[in-house]
Amino acid sequence: MSKPGFNSIALIARDHDPQVQETVTSLATMLIGLNREVWVADDTEFARLEGVHAVPEERIGDHCDLMIAVGGDGTMLQAAHLIRRASLPLLGINRGRRGFLADIRPNEVESGVASILSGQYLRESRMLLTATLRNEQEVKHELHALNDIVVQRGAMGQMLDFEVRVDDAYVNTHRGDGLIISTPTGSTAYALSSGGPIMQPGLNAVAMVPICPHTLSDRPVVIPGNSHIEIRVKHRFDADAFVTVDGRISDEIQAGDTLEVTQAIDRITLLHPADYDYFEVLRSKLNWGHYGLPERA
Amino acid sequence: MSKPGFNSIALIARDHDPQVQETVTSLATMLIGLNREVWVADDTEFARLEGVHAVPEERIGDHCDLMIAVGGDGTMLQAAHLIRRASLPLLGINRGRRGFLADIRPNEVESGVASILSGQYLRESRMLLTATLRNEQEVKHELHALNDIVVQRGAMGQMLDFEVRVDDAYVNTHRGDGLIISTPTGSTAYALSSGGPIMQPGLNAVAMVPICPHTLSDRPVVIPGNSHIEIRVKHRFDADAFVTVDGRISDEIQAGDTLEVTQAIDRITLLHPADYDYFEVLRSKLNWGHYGLPERA
Amino acid sequence: MSKPGFNSIALIARDHDPQVQETVTSLATMLIGLNREVWVADDTEFARLEGVHAVPEERIGDHCDLMIAVGGDGTMLQAAHLIRRASLPLLGINRGRRGFLADIRPNEVESGVASILSGQYLRESRMLLTATLRNEQEVKHELHALNDIVVQRGAMGQMLDFEVRVDDAYVNTHRGDGLIISTPTGSTAYALSSGGPIMQPGLNAVAMVPICPHTLSDRPVVIPGNSHIEIRVKHRFDADAFVTVDGRISDEIQAGDTLEVTQAIDRITLLHPADYDYFEVLRSKLNWGHYGLPERA
Amino acid sequence: MSKPGFNSIALIARDHDPQVQETVTSLATMLIGLNREVWVADDTEFARLEGVHAVPEERIGDHCDLMIAVGGDGTMLQAAHLIRRASLPLLGINRGRRGFLADIRPNEVESGVASILSGQYLRESRMLLTATLRNEQEVKHELHALNDIVVQRGAMGQMLDFEVRVDDAYVNTHRGDGLIISTPTGSTAYALSSGGPIMQPGLNAVAMVPICPHTLSDRPVVIPGNSHIEIRVKHRFDADAFVTVDGRISDEIQAGDTLEVTQAIDRITLLHPADYDYFEVLRSKLNWGHYGLPERA
Repeated sequence: MSKPGFNSIALIARDHDPQVQETVTSLATMLIGLNREVWVADDTEFARLEGVHAVPEERIGDHCDLMIAVGGDGTMLQAAHLIRRASLPLLGINRGRRGFLADIRPNEVESGVASILSGQYLRESRMLLTATLRNEQEVKHELHALNDIVVQRGAMGQMLDFEVRVDDAYVNTHRGDGLIISTPTGSTAYALSSGGPIMQPGLNAVAMVPICPHTLSDRPVVIPGNSHIEIRVKHRFDADAFVTVDGRISDEIQAGDTLEVTQAIDRITLLHPADYDYFEVLRSKLNWGHYGLPERA
Repeated sequence: MSKPGFNSIALIARDHDPQVQETVTSLATMLIGLNREVWVADDTEFARLEGVHAVPEERIGDHCDLMIAVGGDGTMLQAAHLIRRASLPLLGINRGRRGFLADIRPNEVESGVASILSGQYLRESRMLLTATLRNEQEVKHELHALNDIVVQRGAMGQMLDFEVRVDDAYVNTHRGDGLIISTPTGSTAYALSSGGPIMQPGLNAVAMVPICPHTLSDRPVVIPGNSHIEIRVKHRFDADAFVTVDGRISDEIQAGDTLEVTQAIDRITLLHPADYDYFEVLRSKLNWGHYGLPERA
Repeated sequence: MSKPGFNSIALIARDHDPQVQETVTSLATMLIGLNREVWVADDTEFARLEGVHAVPEERIGDHCDLMIAVGGDGTMLQAAHLIRRASLPLLGINRGRRGFLADIRPNEVESGVASILSGQYLRESRMLLTATLRNEQEVKHELHALNDIVVQRGAMGQMLDFEVRVDDAYVNTHRGDGLIISTPTGSTAYALSSGGPIMQPGLNAVAMVPICPHTLSDRPVVIPGNSHIEIRVKHRFDADAFVTVDGRISDEIQAGDTLEVTQAIDRITLLHPADYDYFEVLRSKLNWGHYGLPERA
Repeated sequence: MSKPGFNSIALIARDHDPQVQETVTSLATMLIGLNREVWVADDTEFARLEGVHAVPEERIGDHCDLMIAVGGDGTMLQAAHLIRRASLPLLGINRGRRGFLADIRPNEVESGVASILSGQYLRESRMLLTATLRNEQEVKHELHALNDIVVQRGAMGQMLDFEVRVDDAYVNTHRGDGLIISTPTGSTAYALSSGGPIMQPGLNAVAMVPICPHTLSDRPVVIPGNSHIEIRVKHRFDADAFVTVDGRISDEIQAGDTLEVTQAIDRITLLHPADYDYFEVLRSKLNWGHYGLPERA
């Protein structure tokens, strides 16, 4: 049972959901019973659990060889950010409803995690994006995304013009609410709501999806994953622009700033149960096969 | 219990579905037990049921003051065509899954129909469309639709050009696979699959929805319900065009033909249970509230 | 030539565009030469023109029997707000590119305006919306829109839940970026970018168009124009919501607020050249007939 | 000038368009003047041109080291089929309006073709798809596509169910009008009209795009270019299904048939002018930057 290691395990969860608390508590007990070290963030309720090690969240990856996130896909995104530089893999346990990323159900925690610890799993590598926000003088911010980099106008402002280049070739100036640069992983998140295509996780590609475009023929464009994207916002006196990464971290884009988006050097490793089936997850999450419309005749 | 009449009741159903057969049989028994006359089409299995009256389907409306359709929305469309000229109302019993039109569940037949017979119901009037296909000499065909009139290319042919006028004003020449003229009732059927809007049944409007349009800005247009629409197909040597009504009756459109679509003089009266809620049907049929996508963060 | 009156004419324009300035200047000269009184806003450059009357912008409607707006559709929206309570009609002169609302070209000003003054025009009445933002104690804001009322999340926030009722019936809780309530006039503006249908201006209807909806079956719904819409935002600790009217005036929606949207009592009267053709404007603005896609074979 | 060879040149064009005839005639004269052999199909008007060699169209590739197609993208697709097995590259001259594939304008023929012959060009390799239609006994048909393989219902029939597997994993059963399997080249053709994304030609990917899907969450899926796709149609008694390749060749799919789609072993080589810019073609063909919608305020 010891082949894959997994002797020091980090548990990541938001601690204000009672159901999540219960799952984390029983999972910690189980892991300690299996002689695993359990590490949690020291600013969460979970630091009080008996037998766990508590460290600052941003250091938790240094001590472990597996991270388990308990919660929704939002928690998985947070966990992905924590382990980006570390080489440890990530396993997700959902809150009852299967996520795109968190695919062990709470009522299967014991058997599911035991299988993983015994080496029964699929290992999958997912692309990350790096966004570099710079002005003429300096790099202002470097950000990393598992799902998407989004550039968009402020809520109270007017449409903006987003000028885009790919590998130094001018593509288009998107007039509208914004632009989503999405990985295959993010293609089932915000990009899908904005009319983007679903991209199989194994595809080495990035989608550029306009948000509420002013020109009706301004449609999603899929480009190779190693493309170099450059975005400039043509500012107006009455409108601001922001960049958001995985829906979490945001920054304002000033006039003259350039946002560069490329594939990150680091990747994320996900662990899935051995019977994981991407299309089954799609069918389940998107209610495929639940025919909501009437017969046409 | 006799206020609304409903003493002679037509039952319409497709007779090859065992579940439908069972529902029709028990419904007929119940109605006869309540001293109602029950009428069925003489070319169906139901003509063998004890105590029923069998007549040719196209005459069934002449004998009755209520029609009950058992099946899906397809059966409801068929029933609507049968009662168009008669003044009798239509009630739908579905096959287990609520339809947009057939809204009594099979396990509620007894109580549901009893309520209707006792006068507990909502009466709703729905618009019909009339399509007149004519050439320079004559009217070739007159057709009626509760859902939609569809003009489209043949499967093996090329895109066609569909020239459209509304109230004698030229609108556009739609290049693509076809054009759907939809009532509010039909707005949740084929038109919705083609990108058309949902229209509340009470709205006096018609939607013109292009099918796979060649021009990306060729979008659905909603016009007043009393508009006069005229469609001509610019034929190509290698492509044919067809008109389809409620997905059932089809005819080829020849070069030089004009298809006129207007609101029909006749309307259909639907009966609903007293607690009928259109938006509840929408939510149920379209899986609203079953959030299929992950949180964005 | 004096039948329709139009003896006192308000000119509305943004004064920072040289081309607009030129058009306004020559238009004022022409109108004064035709013995019309010309009124302008006293905080614009145009107040310096010889022979004009300058008053505060918000009072300009009191003095006139016609308003002419020079600029794009944005200026037309601004003008519409100025004349809502007055009964004077509105004529638009565009900046060179025909607008949906401003339909006299700058090179046709002289002949175009002369025709209008001589009574050669089409008069068209357009619906307005009233949005009332209230909390449990009081009405906080009452706003009016020619195009649309938009409720949406802030740029840096998460998706929100927008709970909607129509005529007291619960419709849906839209999860996503927001919701557009659009008139037929606004159906070719923001609503179209978000997937809404085009609605002919004469249609008595309102469209509810979700912005980047989380549920893919959450589609635009068209309802009768006299519907009473009620929107509540389920606030999250990390997200704000805003209401925007015709893209110009904004206000934050607090937890517990209700936004009610109904057809306004006032309407706007537009004047068009006698040869005005709505569908011709559509074809021109949407590039219909400029087939951008290749033949399929 | 002789580096790239191009001594024997095939000219492909449809001969019923006078403008195309004129271009072909002057092009043939020019090429013969430059000591090139010119080959044309023997069943076209062009066989009468002085100095040309006429052979059966399907043999024309055997004699040449360059093919020039004159016409629209349809002619380019036809030419692509002729040279699939030969190794000669393909150059396109359009009819006046730039195509996605045919990118030399008729008024630039002389200079454009001279540049190509002198070695000034970009060489681009494009993926082809192979569709194999088989029943339990045998392969019934093998077809090749540069743009797309389309499976769809007949015009007069009902919706069908299209069961899809990718690399032996079950994906979904698409209920609706059909399914488009598109290359990046085809992503700006029929697939775009059906809601598919634009895919940059260099992307090694294939898009599966449902046509008028019954389930609103049934959205385009992009998968790696080397995927093995398998489609079966669940036939109904009242509906037929057809497969169409590049919009040209069609065949009926019978009950029990399987359609397999994979990347073809052969690829097509396109020649472009040295200043070719894919995004410039996109902007031009899709009218990007011609803002058709009004400002929102």
